[in-house]
Amino acid sequence: MPLTDPDRLFPVEPALRDQARVLYDSVKDLPIVSPHGHCDPSWFARNERFPDPSALFVTPDHYVFRMLVSQGVAMADLGVPRADGGLVETHPRKIWHRFASHYFLFRGTPSAMWLDHSFEHVFGLDAPFGPDTADMYYDHIEARLATDAYLPRALFKRFNVEVLATTEGALDDLRWHKAIAESGWDGRVVTTYRPDAVVDPDFEGFAENVAELGRLTGENTATWDGYLAAHRARRAVFRDHGATATDHGHPTARTADLDRGEAAVLLQKVLLGDATQPEKEMFRAQMLTEMARMSLEDGMVMQIHPGSRRNHNARVFAEFGRDKGFDIPGPTDYVTALKPMLDAVGMEPGLTIILFTLDETAYGRELAPLAGAYPALTLGPPWWFFDSYEGIKRFRETTTETCGFYNTAGFNDDTRAFCSIPARHDVARRSDCAYLATLVGTGRLREAEAFELAHDLTYGLAKKAYKL
Amino acid sequence: MPLTDPDRLFPVEPALRDQARVLYDSVKDLPIVSPHGHCDPSWFARNERFPDPSALFVTPDHYVFRMLVSQGVAMADLGVPRADGGLVETHPRKIWHRFASHYFLFRGTPSAMWLDHSFEHVFGLDAPFGPDTADMYYDHIEARLATDAYLPRALFKRFNVEVLATTEGALDDLRWHKAIAESGWDGRVVTTYRPDAVVDPDFEGFAENVAELGRLTGENTATWDGYLAAHRARRAVFRDHGATATDHGHPTARTADLDRGEAAVLLQKVLLGDATQPEKEMFRAQMLTEMARMSLEDGMVMQIHPGSRRNHNARVFAEFGRDKGFDIPGPTDYVTALKPMLDAVGMEPGLTIILFTLDETAYGRELAPLAGAYPALTLGPPWWFFDSYEGIKRFRETTTETCGFYNTAGFNDDTRAFCSIPARHDVARRSDCAYLATLVGTGRLREAEAFELAHDLTYGLAKKAYKL
Amino acid sequence: MPLTDPDRLFPVEPALRDQARVLYDSVKDLPIVSPHGHCDPSWFARNERFPDPSALFVTPDHYVFRMLVSQGVAMADLGVPRADGGLVETHPRKIWHRFASHYFLFRGTPSAMWLDHSFEHVFGLDAPFGPDTADMYYDHIEARLATDAYLPRALFKRFNVEVLATTEGALDDLRWHKAIAESGWDGRVVTTYRPDAVVDPDFEGFAENVAELGRLTGENTATWDGYLAAHRARRAVFRDHGATATDHGHPTARTADLDRGEAAVLLQKVLLGDATQPEKEMFRAQMLTEMARMSLEDGMVMQIHPGSRRNHNARVFAEFGRDKGFDIPGPTDYVTALKPMLDAVGMEPGLTIILFTLDETAYGRELAPLAGAYPALTLGPPWWFFDSYEGIKRFRETTTETCGFYNTAGFNDDTRAFCSIPARHDVARRSDCAYLATLVGTGRLREAEAFELAHDLTYGLAKKAYKL
Repeated sequence: MPLTDPDRLFPVEPALRDQARVLYDSVKDLPIVSPHGHCDPSWFARNERFPDPSALFVTPDHYVFRMLVSQGVAMADLGVPRADGGLVETHPRKIWHRFASHYFLFRGTPSAMWLDHSFEHVFGLDAPFGPDTADMYYDHIEARLATDAYLPRALFKRFNVEVLATTEGALDDLRWHKAIAESGWDGRVVTTYRPDAVVDPDFEGFAENVAELGRLTGENTATWDGYLAAHRARRAVFRDHGATATDHGHPTARTADLDRGEAAVLLQKVLLGDATQPEKEMFRAQMLTEMARMSLEDGMVMQIHPGSRRNHNARVFAEFGRDKGFDIPGPTDYVTALKPMLDAVGMEPGLTIILFTLDETAYGRELAPLAGAYPALTLGPPWWFFDSYEGIKRFRETTTETCGFYNTAGFNDDTRAFCSIPARHDVARRSDCAYLATLVGTGRLREAEAFELAHDLTYGLAKKAYKL
Repeated sequence: MPLTDPDRLFPVEPALRDQARVLYDSVKDLPIVSPHGHCDPSWFARNERFPDPSALFVTPDHYVFRMLVSQGVAMADLGVPRADGGLVETHPRKIWHRFASHYFLFRGTPSAMWLDHSFEHVFGLDAPFGPDTADMYYDHIEARLATDAYLPRALFKRFNVEVLATTEGALDDLRWHKAIAESGWDGRVVTTYRPDAVVDPDFEGFAENVAELGRLTGENTATWDGYLAAHRARRAVFRDHGATATDHGHPTARTADLDRGEAAVLLQKVLLGDATQPEKEMFRAQMLTEMARMSLEDGMVMQIHPGSRRNHNARVFAEFGRDKGFDIPGPTDYVTALKPMLDAVGMEPGLTIILFTLDETAYGRELAPLAGAYPALTLGPPWWFFDSYEGIKRFRETTTETCGFYNTAGFNDDTRAFCSIPARHDVARRSDCAYLATLVGTGRLREAEAFELAHDLTYGLAKKAYKL
Repeated sequence: MPLTDPDRLFPVEPALRDQARVLYDSVKDLPIVSPHGHCDPSWFARNERFPDPSALFVTPDHYVFRMLVSQGVAMADLGVPRADGGLVETHPRKIWHRFASHYFLFRGTPSAMWLDHSFEHVFGLDAPFGPDTADMYYDHIEARLATDAYLPRALFKRFNVEVLATTEGALDDLRWHKAIAESGWDGRVVTTYRPDAVVDPDFEGFAENVAELGRLTGENTATWDGYLAAHRARRAVFRDHGATATDHGHPTARTADLDRGEAAVLLQKVLLGDATQPEKEMFRAQMLTEMARMSLEDGMVMQIHPGSRRNHNARVFAEFGRDKGFDIPGPTDYVTALKPMLDAVGMEPGLTIILFTLDETAYGRELAPLAGAYPALTLGPPWWFFDSYEGIKRFRETTTETCGFYNTAGFNDDTRAFCSIPARHDVARRSDCAYLATLVGTGRLREAEAFELAHDLTYGLAKKAYKL
């Protein structure tokens, strides 16, 4: 009996299930286009083996360890490195046992489906994972990781990845991307320009980061013109390493369109560190519009994902630092926030701005109406907590009727868990085919249209939206 | 093979589908009651032929042209008239070709279903519309429009419209309604009192509009008493032209209940043009309560639809003016906003205030709890972006459990696309029958109750709510 | 033909229905654990017969009478007691007739399902209720109420209630709980500590309530230390009467963590009655954190349910007082509001804070991400307006993927309608089994896991979360 149901996520009604299955069969073997993610490019540059099962599945994946933490397991006991230098668990097998004994917590979650899919399809396991099978799993995975077939580049090929985008900060030297390019390996791994650390005055070390941006580019980033020129220069460097997109994680979607003089004064203030919170917010807002204008110049696709309240718990942030599963979404306004930027560049048909949300109430109320009107706007896929069967279903049900399919951008896996990439794309393919089958079964779509759409949602729209 | 699936929008599970079909069969031929819409009364007064297929289906319908605009087609290339006097496309067949080549964008949207339904059931076409069939479609529709059977009054009868409400501004001379009445034609077309232009200080030409209201009624609208008396007089004139309802499109649902002196001072300020934004908002708020009080006096049903951020894009507004598909909803508060009005008149069983929303989060959280308690409140149907299968489904699922069916107002088509009226009512009838069938199939409703409800949702509730 | 469909609320697709039925069969006879409700403990202390059918089903249940009020029935005509001393209907049979003639209003609502379930399973009726059967119903129920089998304790046993929690204010003398304990009856009825009247400066008589708290405990509640000590003392008394939990109904979820000096000053202000609204809000906010700290000390489970705008209509509040169906939810922020408390105690694995919401948009956006990260947080079940099939479905669909099942707290009936308790738990059991069956049928859960979960959702999680 397989670990995962071959018909999983398809509708249960037999006619719909058959329809979903034939649609899925037509796209399941298409290459993976992964235009937005957080894999480490050094994996593909160095092509060294992954250290152990826990380092692969537990310690780096905040989707996984946060669930155990929520039930009282200490983060340190899962080997998560401490920012304050405190001791953490170093025995991978002990971490693995803790993971196994709490695996039941994942029942009904996409994490369970992704993990089971990886266990089965990447590692060839078919017994349910749990305390009884923990050691067998550990030994089996450990043995596989020691083989050449499980080196990063081999898995990349086996996963049928056509292109994988990573995300690097504006100050990154892109050495691993350079190394990949120089290695002669034919896997396509591209970078993405993520300038938050030099755009957000609340980022740790902001002023020093901006000074470093100046050093890297030879521009005087203490002036507004120099600061913008430095961004242009770094964007060009990123494009040289394959980047077709930029990525902007802001607390809100606020944009602004100040005149040059105002913007220059604001830059001085944020660099001197005496800006108020509204001024910092205004600076971030202005920079989204500047980045949109640069995208219009240089053709890079712009991604905006607002609305996460980062590092929600003071103690976890102090002890473990950023990105530890304590980023919690809040209500997010788009309609008022984006107006200045959209007044400036929203009607440009040559510009692509991809909007993400963590506030699902915006799908039908704001995002689909905006994307269904503005040429420059495209909806990003459901993301983060909503990269799941129900999340994808709600996304389609609340956006399609207003903006159709062709104002959306295909799927993103957005992951740092490499082995989960095929599983995540598979969930998206199945979920989309289930939705399309339902439309066909209820007379809202012709079957031939559904086959075209299945291909577009799986492959065509991501390639087009990201110019890959 | 028919263009539209005869079982469209019904559940797929066979028992539920059978149940939905018999419910639908019991209501599909009921007359159309259309209590809220934007058809042009001159169509029925003059009874002249519709000019051409593009003028019928593309140019006036912002649901349609906004989708093409969102994918980079210029609004002017679709013949949308420019407010700034610039040139636009004047060849209807060229516009039709652009429409046809982008028709795939509507896949999965209610627009596609409405259009296909009109093509098939109004014009007798059965090949899928697209680039290959564009000319055939154009010629076919053009030929039909030239016949008597496609004149407005003939279609009105063929569509089985029992009553159609249009919407006119407070200053409208209602000449077309007068002409219809005097023509001896027995079609029932009534007007609706929409005073936004003389109630909203942000409306273009507000002060002049209020002065004109004074001239029309012989009241001194520069005084608070005269201004209110002028509204009363215009409401009476509208009632003489069949109106049973008023309609209020406000940016928010804010209401107020100021004393007479405060209100009078506020009127002076907004007329002089020196009111602040909060004062303008307060004036609109006060006027909702005044309108509710007048409804209590004169029996007119009051409709409130707040929450649209109108004319979102500065460039589109400057070039093309209002109502061009760039009205984007935002979060809308009802519970705090409506309290002053509800404290004043909410417990009056003789008053009917119909609430609409563009913020679906309010359905379950605010609107159903309010409508399920206040005698004066009734929920309007899902509307604008939500006048669709999924929109209707979410509306029923999130409101019925709290306020039942009998605090809702039946269906509105809210359209300016005359040929889509049968299609829109058909979608509502099918969607409601699908929902009722699901309730029966899951033991939440008896079958006999479902038949009664199907009739009420299709016909009875709209007649009762709007006193038609 | 039974009044209620034996397969109600199960999926309609035959394979899913079979799956749901076997899951339900495995839990339908489990004892009822009712950890949060509003039954009157005097019923079980005195064990006197319920007065009449209207007093059992109509007059005390705001779910029921608000629906009739919303359609124009006067509250007084349903026997709801007036706070202003005005006359109300005193003939129970007349009230019953009004109820019967409006019973169709409940079509499609959970109230109809609860009532039909009670009529059938508690009273043995099987004809649909309505005007034609009103007298037959009245006489039948009246006759049953006169028998010993329908005394409160007998029904408690027949309903298979393992434990029932009531809710008492901090100043309650708990005499009925004492009487139950001293009576030797073996039914388990426990109290819950609800201190709103001595914590919320906006509560009627707040300063006097705090003074009374001092008299009851011998503490000087005019000082911060004395005020906190008094709470500790009352919590201990409540624990002596079985309480394992506290309950906090606040207008918002705002928390604070002031230093001792600030808090002491704030207490003075709110007691003197010269606090501003923000200061009152800050006091409530501080007290949530204080209560959480006390829970960490004494082990009591803390329940927070924010977001209701109480007593929305001025006229109803003046004439009839609190809890008359005019409490309307509004948008509720959790992520910012809870941060001070969660920074203080959120990472404590020994603490249980159960969060409720009336704003469903928070489920997926805030509550599941918070509960899926913080050890101290658990999600309460859908509640009040959402204690229903669709409400439970949306809850599971929007939370499970992010925080799983094991960060949720089982079911609460939250009712003051004793005879509806079995019906409400039955709806929850059926709705959860329907959801689990759907997960199994779509490959998201193994069948053996579903059986374990059905038991946990019905019984295990509530016992564990509330330490019962």
